[in-house]
Amino acid sequence: MSASVGEFDLIARWFTRPVKRAALGVGDDCAVLTPRAGFQIAISTDLLVEGRHFLSTVPPQHLGHKSLAVNLSDLAACGAAPLAFTLSLALPRVEESFLDGFSKGLWALAEQHQLDLIGGDTTAGPLTIGITIFGEVPTDGALLRSGAKPGDELWVSGGLGDARLALEWFRDRVSLDEAGLRQARQAMELPEPRVELGQALRGVASSAIDLSDGLLGDLQHVLRRSGVGAVLEEGLIPRSALMARQTPELQRLCVLTGGDDYELLFTAAPLQRSSVLEAAKAARTPVTLIGRIVSEPGLSVVGASGHPVPIEDLRSFDHFVT
Amino acid sequence: MSASVGEFDLIARWFTRPVKRAALGVGDDCAVLTPRAGFQIAISTDLLVEGRHFLSTVPPQHLGHKSLAVNLSDLAACGAAPLAFTLSLALPRVEESFLDGFSKGLWALAEQHQLDLIGGDTTAGPLTIGITIFGEVPTDGALLRSGAKPGDELWVSGGLGDARLALEWFRDRVSLDEAGLRQARQAMELPEPRVELGQALRGVASSAIDLSDGLLGDLQHVLRRSGVGAVLEEGLIPRSALMARQTPELQRLCVLTGGDDYELLFTAAPLQRSSVLEAAKAARTPVTLIGRIVSEPGLSVVGASGHPVPIEDLRSFDHFVT
Repeated sequence: MSASVGEFDLIARWFTRPVKRAALGVGDDCAVLTPRAGFQIAISTDLLVEGRHFLSTVPPQHLGHKSLAVNLSDLAACGAAPLAFTLSLALPRVEESFLDGFSKGLWALAEQHQLDLIGGDTTAGPLTIGITIFGEVPTDGALLRSGAKPGDELWVSGGLGDARLALEWFRDRVSLDEAGLRQARQAMELPEPRVELGQALRGVASSAIDLSDGLLGDLQHVLRRSGVGAVLEEGLIPRSALMARQTPELQRLCVLTGGDDYELLFTAAPLQRSSVLEAAKAARTPVTLIGRIVSEPGLSVVGASGHPVPIEDLRSFDHFVT
Repeated sequence: MSASVGEFDLIARWFTRPVKRAALGVGDDCAVLTPRAGFQIAISTDLLVEGRHFLSTVPPQHLGHKSLAVNLSDLAACGAAPLAFTLSLALPRVEESFLDGFSKGLWALAEQHQLDLIGGDTTAGPLTIGITIFGEVPTDGALLRSGAKPGDELWVSGGLGDARLALEWFRDRVSLDEAGLRQARQAMELPEPRVELGQALRGVASSAIDLSDGLLGDLQHVLRRSGVGAVLEEGLIPRSALMARQTPELQRLCVLTGGDDYELLFTAAPLQRSSVLEAAKAARTPVTLIGRIVSEPGLSVVGASGHPVPIEDLRSFDHFVT
């Protein structure tokens, strides 16, 4: 704790850069965004608490990256183009090495996506990171959870489960070699939000959501809001070679309920299949067909053997049920 | 702790109502606002931490009110009309009586100002409340901290210091009778943001800020950003009859450095005096002339006797300097 670093110095030193896209950034009572004609503002907010959303072992630079990445992932799921964000930070103390690392990771990802940091709040308190992010979408062009239709195909980007594998390692429930641990930690601490894919899927996908709480739980949000059901083929779910080397039980836990994947799960009519693949190519992001939407509500998972997988025992990550 | 209440039930039960002004509210990856042509979106965010921004003694209903009030006060300072907000909540446990009270206070103030709750996040963690609020202002019409000019008059709304008086009572540094304590606690726990006054001052005031950290500290933000100085007359600072009965030292502490006032401090050219008074009348909010802006940087405070008041020892509330 450096008693000489007040709130205003802290913001000026670590969290103020000239804005490029906002009309007014950090330093006044409000920031100001000027929306372009024909566009809407998409907004998402996340609160990250130590021990719940990240471990105390995370390097500050990775934490800065991840805090913004999880919000960018929400914009991606709506097909929005990133514009700006606000940052609220409660810190137990002003620790320069933490703030150097955290801000470095945050700014690197912000600049990659041309995001302005337009405001925020800092205070003493248990380590907590609140980000609200803003994007733009053409009017009525946002991808929603509610658009899945019977007959649609179900797709997912990237590969699932590595982040959960890292968590299981930290919980001492699995052993990994050095290369495996590095890969799993990278998935957990440095997720790459699928921002380009989300935008490329506008007008192509019928619904989308980002995978933050686990495939089964997040898919059920889509099904509920769309008033449909789904058949998911477990054997089709994409996973890394590292994941494919784990036991079948661990693979099932990680890919079906893992959480922290930050991939996009989306639906599209079968006629859109070539457009989906073009969007994926344009965004340089692999996508995989993993199931289909059916009219009867409910979710069934078919195992590699063709038999149904009992999913009652696989609970999605809920921040109030542990 | 009710283990049966998950995150989604919690949001559905306490924090979901149909939106009136937003294009899309709670329940998807993003909320969506459709700005009106000719308007900009003003954005502010605040993070409230127990023990730092509120005491554990605050009734939940008052906390719900205050959490939103401090954000509305930022919109007021920009002259913005309230539109919507997001709410992030970290809770040590799901306690129905707390959530009933908190949400009741929050919704009452939200409905008074026709604010939609459009999204948020809830998690387990130390009690922390993060709100990001959205308003609209005509393009280039926002009141800023940076517009004060030499010769401008310095005004403040309402009366100052009662909230700090309550804090001093909780710290056992002052005694108050029952009616006095009630009034002081009301000021601390139920501030009324000056939303109507802020909008009425657009085109009239040259700069504005809301008083959250204390008059001296907040005035210095205006002076620094405007590149000017000010002469403040201590004897002109408006205060309640309760405040006027306290010792001169305590009055000075409370009105000059108090914090948590949520009044508007603003500047206007002398020619605008009648417009200022008309705006105040239209907003049914008292305003008082308390000083003037000068070209030479720096702040001087003149006491009732005409002698300068030494302000070096009066430090504004800084959340990292206690």
